[in-house]
Amino acid sequence: MTVFAPELAVSRWFNAARPLSLAGLRGKTVVLHAFQMLCPGCVMHALPQTERLHRLFMNHPGVAVIGLHTVFEHHAAMTPVSLEAFIHEYRLSFPIGVDQASDNEAIPVTMRRFGMRGTPTTIIIDPAGRIVEHAFGQEEDLALGVLLGSLIARAPMPDAISASDAGCAEGACPAPTGEAA
Amino acid sequence: MTVFAPELAVSRWFNAARPLSLAGLRGKTVVLHAFQMLCPGCVMHALPQTERLHRLFMNHPGVAVIGLHTVFEHHAAMTPVSLEAFIHEYRLSFPIGVDQASDNEAIPVTMRRFGMRGTPTTIIIDPAGRIVEHAFGQEEDLALGVLLGSLIARAPMPDAISASDAGCAEGACPAPTGEAA
Amino acid sequence: MTVFAPELAVSRWFNAARPLSLAGLRGKTVVLHAFQMLCPGCVMHALPQTERLHRLFMNHPGVAVIGLHTVFEHHAAMTPVSLEAFIHEYRLSFPIGVDQASDNEAIPVTMRRFGMRGTPTTIIIDPAGRIVEHAFGQEEDLALGVLLGSLIARAPMPDAISASDAGCAEGACPAPTGEAA
Amino acid sequence: MTVFAPELAVSRWFNAARPLSLAGLRGKTVVLHAFQMLCPGCVMHALPQTERLHRLFMNHPGVAVIGLHTVFEHHAAMTPVSLEAFIHEYRLSFPIGVDQASDNEAIPVTMRRFGMRGTPTTIIIDPAGRIVEHAFGQEEDLALGVLLGSLIARAPMPDAISASDAGCAEGACPAPTGEAA
Repeated sequence: MTVFAPELAVSRWFNAARPLSLAGLRGKTVVLHAFQMLCPGCVMHALPQTERLHRLFMNHPGVAVIGLHTVFEHHAAMTPVSLEAFIHEYRLSFPIGVDQASDNEAIPVTMRRFGMRGTPTTIIIDPAGRIVEHAFGQEEDLALGVLLGSLIARAPMPDAISASDAGCAEGACPAPTGEAA
Repeated sequence: MTVFAPELAVSRWFNAARPLSLAGLRGKTVVLHAFQMLCPGCVMHALPQTERLHRLFMNHPGVAVIGLHTVFEHHAAMTPVSLEAFIHEYRLSFPIGVDQASDNEAIPVTMRRFGMRGTPTTIIIDPAGRIVEHAFGQEEDLALGVLLGSLIARAPMPDAISASDAGCAEGACPAPTGEAA
Repeated sequence: MTVFAPELAVSRWFNAARPLSLAGLRGKTVVLHAFQMLCPGCVMHALPQTERLHRLFMNHPGVAVIGLHTVFEHHAAMTPVSLEAFIHEYRLSFPIGVDQASDNEAIPVTMRRFGMRGTPTTIIIDPAGRIVEHAFGQEEDLALGVLLGSLIARAPMPDAISASDAGCAEGACPAPTGEAA
Repeated sequence: MTVFAPELAVSRWFNAARPLSLAGLRGKTVVLHAFQMLCPGCVMHALPQTERLHRLFMNHPGVAVIGLHTVFEHHAAMTPVSLEAFIHEYRLSFPIGVDQASDNEAIPVTMRRFGMRGTPTTIIIDPAGRIVEHAFGQEEDLALGVLLGSLIARAPMPDAISASDAGCAEGACPAPTGEAA
């Protein structure tokens, strides 16, 4: 069954020169890592892994690594102000979006759209926008690497790389121009 | 040179049935662990170590293990509300005090009194109230264990254990009666 | 520069129903891990990694994971008798060949043929028999996984899988019938 | 129940200028670590821990850290020749004795005398020669450190330190003169 990834709903970005969107990243393999800054399994395992992934693919035009702060509990404790200090102290360098709070429930909008079960969650989206991996919990480096390597090798290289996409200025990889914000 | 420990200045306690004070803990060997909830070296190493220490000495009448949240940066990001969620998510069970904010500087009151250089800091106070160890950075389990075991063995056992001191109700060790709050 | 892998020279196999050869494994991606049983970097890092790789690809018809015991020092201490006990105690389940001792030097025959610099060494050979990776020292799981996943995805699947190849009886993956020993 | 430690029966010493004996070490707290070079729990955990202990107490006149190679299986695989290379490759610097093989059973003589259940085993002997700890399996650094620190603090300091005892020449701590070999 093919499942296309819904769009991100993000209220604020860190480590990004401009807002990112999955529509704007079409053509790339996207690793979307959902976490909470007070989730021990994220802090001890999944976030360092995502940072390693980001550094590995930093200059790869066909891969984007994105974090998503999906706060579904302790909302007052994990505000954007706290997240900003957390990102600074843990030296996270990949783009991180704050999942948009819902008006009527604890679970934020993107988390609900994707049907995530909790944090950490790792979702991989292929260049055509299809969800090819959706895993809740901790992933092993080796198995995740093999899966990613395989997906990337099968993906066509992006046709053209726009100017804004070619560089990773300010330590972050901005999306191609023309994307929806 | 003998240095006596100054008193704690704490604005709020977690995991404690009532406020603790070093005066009230006189007669015990006290391990005071100063940390910040967004300090990676604390989260990855020093806090799990302090939790192990707490569990090891939970029922030992001559030892108290105490945490102190010494926020000296990112004050808006590490409020008591955030700390409370952090303590809950990381399952910390030892008493933790919030170091009292200073009126005129970033460094909080107790941190200044002890002359701490940063976090994590481990301070050991003997039963007479003297500072016998003051270490900034990460400590090895083995060396810290040997030092503590040695100090405890040399210390006289507390003369009398008051009723309130004998138990560790609610997962925390209340101080002996008569202590200053 | 294309470098074709020379053939293995192995005096004894463990965890293999019959002798393996690179010629017989043509058509598969081969991970060749060279180690010594008394090399700490192998024991602590590279051998557990190779075991994880083996378990990950156990049922994959296009991948073979092989160990090679390349003793180039302490020859009397690392005999096949010692190796056999080592393999048993460390629960290694992938096929392991003993690199054939040289008549006139400390370095064994296969190690010399490949120009290996020491242990651990990880060599990856593509289905056409070309060396596509030759690394001395410890490899990170994530980067190794990405490389392998990418190579495997690009490789054509083996045309036909012989009966002897389909199963991994006795905890090991026998080579296809017809291979040269 | 007080249990006095039986004497060691050792066929060969490594990292020792002369043979050691428990009789010769009377007056010191002795940490006796029994291991096998092909025991993964020893290699991964207990031997690095013993090395750390040795370095911690290297210059402490009241403590001796000793290894004992208690081969009770795979005898042909764990000969003194193999052990010597193992000690060299793993950079073990504490004195290590080879437990004397038994004439009529797989379990060596010292292992039988102490009633050890397997490897790793950690035995602590107080200055009077009494066994105060006998643990089979892996020990946590913190708890082991506290126990050792406590025992050492309670022990009287050795009355006199002989010349041969004062130094740790050749990377090992020879026993006091007058000891039985």
